[in-house]
Amino acid sequence: MSFGEIDQLCINTIRILAVDMTFQANSGHPGAPMGLAPVAHVLFNKFMKFNPKNPKWANRDRFVLSNGHACALQYILLHLYGYDMTMEDLKNFRQVNSKTPGHPENHISGIEVTTGPLGQGFSNAVGLALAQTHTSATFNKDQFDVINNYTYVFTGDGCLMEGVASEAASLAGHLKLGNLICIYDDNHISIDGDTNCAFTEDVDKRFEAYGWQTFVVEKGDTDLESISAAIEKARKVRDKPSIIRLRTTIGFGSKIAGTGKVHGSPLSKEDAMHVKSIFGFDSEKSFQVPDIVYEFYRKTATKGAKVEKEWNILFSEYENKYSSEAAQLKRRLTGKLPEGWEKSLPTYSPEDKAIASRTLSQTIIEKLAHVIPEFICGSADLTGSNLTRWKDAVDFQHPSTGLGDYSGRYVRYGVREHAMAGLMNGMAAYGTIIPAGGTFLNFISYAAGSVRLSALSHHQVIYIATHDSIGLGEDGPTHQPIETMAHFRALPNMMVWRPADGNETSAAYYIALTERGKPTIMALSRQNLPQLSGSTIGKAIKGGYTLLETHEKADITLISTGSEVGICVDAVKILKMQGIKARVVSLPCWEVFDTQSKDYKLSVLPDDIPILSVEVYSTLGWEKYSHEQFGINTFGASGPYKDVYKKYDFIPEGIAKRAAQTVEFWKDVKPIRSPLNRAFEQLI
Amino acid sequence: MSFGEIDQLCINTIRILAVDMTFQANSGHPGAPMGLAPVAHVLFNKFMKFNPKNPKWANRDRFVLSNGHACALQYILLHLYGYDMTMEDLKNFRQVNSKTPGHPENHISGIEVTTGPLGQGFSNAVGLALAQTHTSATFNKDQFDVINNYTYVFTGDGCLMEGVASEAASLAGHLKLGNLICIYDDNHISIDGDTNCAFTEDVDKRFEAYGWQTFVVEKGDTDLESISAAIEKARKVRDKPSIIRLRTTIGFGSKIAGTGKVHGSPLSKEDAMHVKSIFGFDSEKSFQVPDIVYEFYRKTATKGAKVEKEWNILFSEYENKYSSEAAQLKRRLTGKLPEGWEKSLPTYSPEDKAIASRTLSQTIIEKLAHVIPEFICGSADLTGSNLTRWKDAVDFQHPSTGLGDYSGRYVRYGVREHAMAGLMNGMAAYGTIIPAGGTFLNFISYAAGSVRLSALSHHQVIYIATHDSIGLGEDGPTHQPIETMAHFRALPNMMVWRPADGNETSAAYYIALTERGKPTIMALSRQNLPQLSGSTIGKAIKGGYTLLETHEKADITLISTGSEVGICVDAVKILKMQGIKARVVSLPCWEVFDTQSKDYKLSVLPDDIPILSVEVYSTLGWEKYSHEQFGINTFGASGPYKDVYKKYDFIPEGIAKRAAQTVEFWKDVKPIRSPLNRAFEQLI
Repeated sequence: MSFGEIDQLCINTIRILAVDMTFQANSGHPGAPMGLAPVAHVLFNKFMKFNPKNPKWANRDRFVLSNGHACALQYILLHLYGYDMTMEDLKNFRQVNSKTPGHPENHISGIEVTTGPLGQGFSNAVGLALAQTHTSATFNKDQFDVINNYTYVFTGDGCLMEGVASEAASLAGHLKLGNLICIYDDNHISIDGDTNCAFTEDVDKRFEAYGWQTFVVEKGDTDLESISAAIEKARKVRDKPSIIRLRTTIGFGSKIAGTGKVHGSPLSKEDAMHVKSIFGFDSEKSFQVPDIVYEFYRKTATKGAKVEKEWNILFSEYENKYSSEAAQLKRRLTGKLPEGWEKSLPTYSPEDKAIASRTLSQTIIEKLAHVIPEFICGSADLTGSNLTRWKDAVDFQHPSTGLGDYSGRYVRYGVREHAMAGLMNGMAAYGTIIPAGGTFLNFISYAAGSVRLSALSHHQVIYIATHDSIGLGEDGPTHQPIETMAHFRALPNMMVWRPADGNETSAAYYIALTERGKPTIMALSRQNLPQLSGSTIGKAIKGGYTLLETHEKADITLISTGSEVGICVDAVKILKMQGIKARVVSLPCWEVFDTQSKDYKLSVLPDDIPILSVEVYSTLGWEKYSHEQFGINTFGASGPYKDVYKKYDFIPEGIAKRAAQTVEFWKDVKPIRSPLNRAFEQLI
Repeated sequence: MSFGEIDQLCINTIRILAVDMTFQANSGHPGAPMGLAPVAHVLFNKFMKFNPKNPKWANRDRFVLSNGHACALQYILLHLYGYDMTMEDLKNFRQVNSKTPGHPENHISGIEVTTGPLGQGFSNAVGLALAQTHTSATFNKDQFDVINNYTYVFTGDGCLMEGVASEAASLAGHLKLGNLICIYDDNHISIDGDTNCAFTEDVDKRFEAYGWQTFVVEKGDTDLESISAAIEKARKVRDKPSIIRLRTTIGFGSKIAGTGKVHGSPLSKEDAMHVKSIFGFDSEKSFQVPDIVYEFYRKTATKGAKVEKEWNILFSEYENKYSSEAAQLKRRLTGKLPEGWEKSLPTYSPEDKAIASRTLSQTIIEKLAHVIPEFICGSADLTGSNLTRWKDAVDFQHPSTGLGDYSGRYVRYGVREHAMAGLMNGMAAYGTIIPAGGTFLNFISYAAGSVRLSALSHHQVIYIATHDSIGLGEDGPTHQPIETMAHFRALPNMMVWRPADGNETSAAYYIALTERGKPTIMALSRQNLPQLSGSTIGKAIKGGYTLLETHEKADITLISTGSEVGICVDAVKILKMQGIKARVVSLPCWEVFDTQSKDYKLSVLPDDIPILSVEVYSTLGWEKYSHEQFGINTFGASGPYKDVYKKYDFIPEGIAKRAAQTVEFWKDVKPIRSPLNRAFEQLI
């Protein structure tokens, strides 16, 4: 296929629509869409496999716009190809409640992942490619390439400067993900102006060092043949990811083309008219799409629908021949877990020995691995500490390494926490995988950019965050989280679990796996924790519950999480000797507890009893549930963990002392209101 | 100088001390110190310029152990060279309250920066090198090279996998920092085992792509001559940073040398004895240092003292000839700000026009740049949005670029938020610079790993965090912080400011600059904010104060920060019409307010008046000050900012509505206790 006038007309239509959208919004980024219109046109029209009428078709090629600020481009493509995106939607660009927000969001039909924070989309694309590779290796059979899609990602200079993209690129090279093709918009412009001011590295050489195949297209604004040839060649490279460096002109066609001025603000009215006129459009009109452009794109869409139809036939045959594989793939695509999987979750009683919650998690992982085939685990180079690997796990590796194969379900992420999270978002977005990945809780913060997007994008990603506190001991304050739980508890749509024993750990996994639209952080101890009397999975799945009740009205409620719950139980014994009746509430997951009925919550944290919270973290946020807080609002210390706990007085005596002070301080206050009582529901 | 038996004895002494320290602690990392002992010996003995008796000597070479888990090595060196580190300290390795914590901390004499979280030390080293380069360019004169130190950094595979190190390496290459020498411990082992499982990139090629000079030493365990020659050559490369890839054997000498087993756990008793015996030490004894080893190292220390003495003479002459430069350098080294600098802080009155706090910040930066020469600013490629650059600023660039020079005080960090923060920590540690750097508040989270270390290490770093809320409007939820303030408010030793107007912005800068041991995050608005009646710098520097008082006893206290304070003031007018008397408290900095006297705090948030907090973030943490919270516990939205504020009801009417509900709900509660009343002080 060679390119003709119609292609140029399509490209220019995209360009002037981007000009109009940003002009109408009086906000946004016209430059990148104008520069990327040619490659987008060639890619979508000639190579991409998709059906706008079924945007969730399992074997579609995945497209990720990592430079998400260029989203006008993506919305225009969705419109022109006939996705659920009207001209009215384009006109509402960047307006409240529109389908065209300022950066692409994955709830919009046809958009795979939410991007915008630079580097995220790139790492998502690596995750999508990994997921495809794994799914192919798991399900494809001789003559049945049921899963063989590509992942294409557009990226700008900004993404490639970000560490998360460097990490992901290095890992993609190591894993030899041949189905991944990156198109790098090398336009020499970032927000501060010419990239010469901060970004002068040799990008091609860097990617070669990572093990990528590199291609260059010098005339990315005009040379459709070369663009097409480069993509063609990249598709043929099957043992490496490819990057095509495309020299483009930001804002091509504008009077300020090739400058930073066209990056992040609409064109002036005059310049907008200029662009339209040089591209042969009516300079007075806006949102012009020639009918032949619509026709042209709809033809491609029809072709896409046909390709899907052919695939459906292939899949039917596959289903006949490999019924259990087909059933499993279909089940995984619907997001339904295997029947009865939850029976594998272990339960414990107080007679069972004390076990670290990271080890309790390991026991669960060992079982889940065998009953939930879509459960893919890994670690950022802390496998032996996170205890994330099951006994007969196979590593996800290129077979040539001799270290595993592509059907492997254990990913060695290397010391790349941020990329691990970014990849897991992509893996979750692919649709056939539930990814879980381990690191120390303190280093989840390295991944904060991606963790935020897990929550915002409703990706079911499980962060296994061991060494969850000063309880990690000797590694000291650089490794001991203090602020981390407050951070992630404040993150909307994120479930942060900190189980106190075996039953609570099982409950945490139960909710993490059944809540399909929410990510989870599991904060797990390094040190052993006793199995508590009064805990059950059934109680713990409510997020918070009364672990230890008093016969008569209590003098105080102790509320705690994780490793401190057992210490609170011991404190109760000391308080009893002092004539103080204490009850204990375990609150392993705030997010889940908050969704319970008010009656239930008030039964757990009732009025008329002062409440003391106990947790070895910043007290910030605990005022929501308690009248008094015992926590650590400074950094930790290096030493054997018992000594560190003692240093901060998180021992039964230290808790009892503060509980007694609390009882004394509140004794004349009548009535005592549970902090749960509020004038209005907080905006949720 | 060639190497002899004594050198080998020194190296083996270091090795067996590392074995003993970790064995005694029953915890820690013997492998890396054993592998790195040769290069550490050669570097410190032959090349490093330092005086153990004056660890803060301005022109000392800087040493950074980025693979901080190898800190036994660093403590041993400090001990052998006669720093304030006794044999007893070595024996207390990893114990509570010891001088030898599990990772190096910068409060220990002779340790420049706190490391351990991987990649941080590497980026700190780039910052130290940048600071030295700038200080040299600013102060050195013909024949007076008063500042010419090198920065050496040891790094392992882990650091080089981290994105923050990639970002920092790319920037160091761009900036051509010839005084920076990295020694890469290429031991093929990370925690998960052989680096083949996740890290197979070509590191040399990657660093060449960044613009670094690369060297390789194949026999890093034994070939002292080659190690020395490589360092010698690297020192001569003046227009590029250098990396020496040193092939070593982790745990050299141990029976499990070259395996992952020797990385993170002490040797067995038998293996420890084995190591001692093959190195010719008494296998039954521990903590052995032959006298001649002490003598040898003390000789180097004496040489170092002499070098400093010579420098002192040079500096005296410099002082005679360039008295004002010398005085400035000395002043900067003591951390004292220039006399009267604070007079440059602007004040505002309610008649002044509404201005965005990012623009108010720009006005201050414009002034500070001229009165505080140690103030070095920059941005992670958002200069035009963060408004961090003053009019006649010179960029910090290699002169050959034609874009600036090394005396320039404006750093173009590129889209590298994490490295910006890591570099700023190093710059602050250097001692002659107060660094400030800009990005959007939401993307400070990308830098969380380094921001945490700013706080833990008491670095005076200023984060200029603009576009601080949904008020940034069209960019939408991917760019709008919700959880961010809770995160950093929970971080110990971090001052998070969110000024409401001009006077508060000046107050924020006043405290940020005068508090030498604390970092600051300035959350600044994109949108205009009115100048408030009742605000003064004097009040705002208390962190919180009564902005608007009622004549009679109030029915409600509204407490708020930043852009919402002005909306609260408007809400008061609506409430007045409803017969509700409301007072308004502005709380721009929790950390600072918390340090005020209880009496003062209770005067701002008194008993017997219900308190409603108003802020467009997660409500988490606000329960500390308020009875009721109005916030956003979900993600934001894309749209013009006024529409977004309206969507979430953060308009005067929405606040007034909730205030009325609060008054109604609390009307029968007597007494109402201010949440500031507590049974005991939280652990701080």
